[in-house]
Amino acid sequence: MGTTMTGAKAMIRTLVGAGVTTCFANPGTSEMHFVAALDAEPGLRAVLGLFEGVATGAADGCARMTGVPAATLLHLGPGLGNGLANLHNARRAATPMVNIVGDHATGHERFDAPLQSDIATVARNVSPWIGRPAAPEELCRVTAEAVAAASAPPGQVATLILPADVSWSDGATPAPPLPDVTRTTVDDTVVDDVAAALRSGAPAALLLGGATLRRHHLAAAAGIAGATRARVLATTFVARTERGAGIPAVEKLQYLGELAATQLDGLRHLVLVDAAHPASFFAYPGKPSDLVPAGCTVHVLAGPADDALDALARVADLVGGKTDVAALPDAPLPARPTGPLTGAALAAAVANVLPEGAVVSDESATNSLWMSAATVGCPSHDWLQLTGGAIGQGLPVAVGAAVASPDRPVFALEADGSAMYTIQSLWTMARESLDVTTVIMNNRSYAILNMELARTGAGEAGPQARDLLDLSRPDIDFVRLAEGMGVPAVAAHTAEEAIEALERAAAEPGPHLIDAILQR
Amino acid sequence: MGTTMTGAKAMIRTLVGAGVTTCFANPGTSEMHFVAALDAEPGLRAVLGLFEGVATGAADGCARMTGVPAATLLHLGPGLGNGLANLHNARRAATPMVNIVGDHATGHERFDAPLQSDIATVARNVSPWIGRPAAPEELCRVTAEAVAAASAPPGQVATLILPADVSWSDGATPAPPLPDVTRTTVDDTVVDDVAAALRSGAPAALLLGGATLRRHHLAAAAGIAGATRARVLATTFVARTERGAGIPAVEKLQYLGELAATQLDGLRHLVLVDAAHPASFFAYPGKPSDLVPAGCTVHVLAGPADDALDALARVADLVGGKTDVAALPDAPLPARPTGPLTGAALAAAVANVLPEGAVVSDESATNSLWMSAATVGCPSHDWLQLTGGAIGQGLPVAVGAAVASPDRPVFALEADGSAMYTIQSLWTMARESLDVTTVIMNNRSYAILNMELARTGAGEAGPQARDLLDLSRPDIDFVRLAEGMGVPAVAAHTAEEAIEALERAAAEPGPHLIDAILQR
Repeated sequence: MGTTMTGAKAMIRTLVGAGVTTCFANPGTSEMHFVAALDAEPGLRAVLGLFEGVATGAADGCARMTGVPAATLLHLGPGLGNGLANLHNARRAATPMVNIVGDHATGHERFDAPLQSDIATVARNVSPWIGRPAAPEELCRVTAEAVAAASAPPGQVATLILPADVSWSDGATPAPPLPDVTRTTVDDTVVDDVAAALRSGAPAALLLGGATLRRHHLAAAAGIAGATRARVLATTFVARTERGAGIPAVEKLQYLGELAATQLDGLRHLVLVDAAHPASFFAYPGKPSDLVPAGCTVHVLAGPADDALDALARVADLVGGKTDVAALPDAPLPARPTGPLTGAALAAAVANVLPEGAVVSDESATNSLWMSAATVGCPSHDWLQLTGGAIGQGLPVAVGAAVASPDRPVFALEADGSAMYTIQSLWTMARESLDVTTVIMNNRSYAILNMELARTGAGEAGPQARDLLDLSRPDIDFVRLAEGMGVPAVAAHTAEEAIEALERAAAEPGPHLIDAILQR
Repeated sequence: MGTTMTGAKAMIRTLVGAGVTTCFANPGTSEMHFVAALDAEPGLRAVLGLFEGVATGAADGCARMTGVPAATLLHLGPGLGNGLANLHNARRAATPMVNIVGDHATGHERFDAPLQSDIATVARNVSPWIGRPAAPEELCRVTAEAVAAASAPPGQVATLILPADVSWSDGATPAPPLPDVTRTTVDDTVVDDVAAALRSGAPAALLLGGATLRRHHLAAAAGIAGATRARVLATTFVARTERGAGIPAVEKLQYLGELAATQLDGLRHLVLVDAAHPASFFAYPGKPSDLVPAGCTVHVLAGPADDALDALARVADLVGGKTDVAALPDAPLPARPTGPLTGAALAAAVANVLPEGAVVSDESATNSLWMSAATVGCPSHDWLQLTGGAIGQGLPVAVGAAVASPDRPVFALEADGSAMYTIQSLWTMARESLDVTTVIMNNRSYAILNMELARTGAGEAGPQARDLLDLSRPDIDFVRLAEGMGVPAVAAHTAEEAIEALERAAAEPGPHLIDAILQR
């Protein structure tokens, strides 16, 4: 009965009604009606990226900060392809996202026009939920289902394939949002089992992952640790970690399997809290992929869709654990660095500048260890990591985090090699005047691959092999790249220059880039 | 019996033995043994791209020029995703390519490590042939099959998924190449039918596509046209066209369906020669997708795997067609342009500079009409086009063409919006000292989308919509971008500056970029 309108308008109204208010877009012809409808439905803010990997990564970063789905707008199968790597990362981050992929009009498919491809097949890899409304009459129901699927714990990418004629035709009616799905309460038997294991006195650890690296979860885990001497560990790569002053620090499992195995050595109980069974990131000749030591029992306290905070609180109650976060000792800040700009000096510089409430997008690769260690005593902040191993996420996530949190300064700590995958992000930072300080860790190499080449036992690298891991010849001048996209930039060659540049960037609103030329 | 070696070494030896001598790579940890083996097997040249879309597009450009498969080396599913758009274009170009995607070791999959994904599912969309050897003993057989599948007419992307342990383990033996597959000879009945239709006197046209826009095919088609008054048309987007002085010119079907329909209006016979049934690129409300007029009979003279040159020659024999290419009139060159730098002036500038034997990678979007019209009378050259509609192909294809043809000057005619998808290509041009002159057609907008917004009938664009099609705020400074990646660059604001910059770039070897600031 109600008034009908074009699919595009009704879809946008449905999205906004369900709380989806930001869309990171790189549209083409098949999305033109959606684009044209934006002005009639101003509740949805559209942010342009010059490459789809920027749009998908930014939607990930945005939703990590808001907790509600962000949308994308991509152009057919190739647009989805360009966005796929950061959708992979979003899948691993369990980020709620409505991934809108425009398609040819339904009657046009049979001509196999140049841009025709099988969008659903590509999307399946990153998006458990896929919808493709065939008519404007069903578009808004499917849209509401997409938002609900994206939002249901733990969160996921939901892909809605939007044929151009479904978008442009009249006959659609906005749909109300579907009811929220809440997290599952963990059974008493599970809680009891974990509490008993932790009280047994045998060496034990909690391993926190997923959405549990937050202030309250960490406090509950710290209480359990205080009462039982269980250790608290965290998975290596986490979508969002609350850390800094007033928040219990947590020991991360190391990226290198050998080191992670040492951390887990001797454990008799490992309690997974929204965390996967620990395995090495890659396999290596003659090394085990499974990192859990023999004789260690693995308990699952909470899975990804469970209410892990409630489960942790109940375990804490059973073991008599409490944490007074106000009494936590302040972790020390590193001294103000001077001299050569090493990875450690740069990390100390960042730690000396990072303000209360900052959001850090960390894709610093080989320098991440320095960065996370140096900043643990900073004022409280959020730390966003690369979750799926597909590099090129850090700058887009910073874009999205800044769009989501305009009142919080964002720092993108970015390895040079990784930065080049989605360097177009800088343009969106400039266009939207985002308060992002990008620090390029410029070591002129895929340094992590030099390390991996040795670790894989592939033997001594010859000139061809070394060439493929080397980013010099020519050196990349990130100052010029940034300026070319409208972002003020400066190079830093010493710790003093780095500190000065960071302080200036922090003092001025809007985007900045610091090309930190690291000593090799 | 024979000596065995690691999978990586034997695979490279197999590739080289089958004629695959260039690999465009963006490797990660799972590809380290392949990388390390390159120095032992120097027949395979590895060229680094800083983004996978550069690698896949360059492999496409390389193979378009050599006619034999080029290889890629990509890092798991996300690497494939980043390369997918240009693999889509390569699929549409029927380019022979061996797309090597490294994967986790076979035993590592069950841990669902962060980079785990379903590679084959993603590849299926662009690669009809997919192989995944499970052991080094079968790797080289599968590799030889991949090369054969890629090479079989008309050419295709063949994806070989290479588990890390299959690459690093001993036990592989190089395999010899499989026999070549030749093109199919078209039946006499088909040739006779086409000849009869063309001799009927009813309005007729040949529509050439695929691999038939070459010197000899065009000469045969021109002979047929001379004898029968049939017109010779070409599909809008062609992987490689030989054109210029001494080569019969051909009328292209226009991108805009309305114009293409006008070109086909009144035809009674349309003869497809390695060309798809003409359809509009996109669908539009109330407009037909099928461009063939009512009452026109469509004949298929040759499909993609057929010997179209032989078929054309046989039709020419039957209709008594001959072409004396030496007697072809010279198409005029445009006058040396002066004054404001419009699209037409820039095209005239390029036409005045384009040397004999040049290779043009054309992704000039809205300016492509000017460019192709202005250059038809230039010395003979090759023209490579965007075949699949996934923008971001022009610069990578120029990289690959320059690697394949080091003695030929390459010109990349590149729209500003399209350039930004794979701008990392400039770095590879600098690293490899490729003789590529990139001309950015900088109109500070997705100009084609402004046109499409109007054509789709989406209504008047409001501020949000206009913003999504606009590339100013900030303007992109391509000179800085190029210099940041080691490519000498200059901006041109007038026709005189454009000519001067083009002449200087043509005179100096190595890469150059000209940021042509077009009048709006």
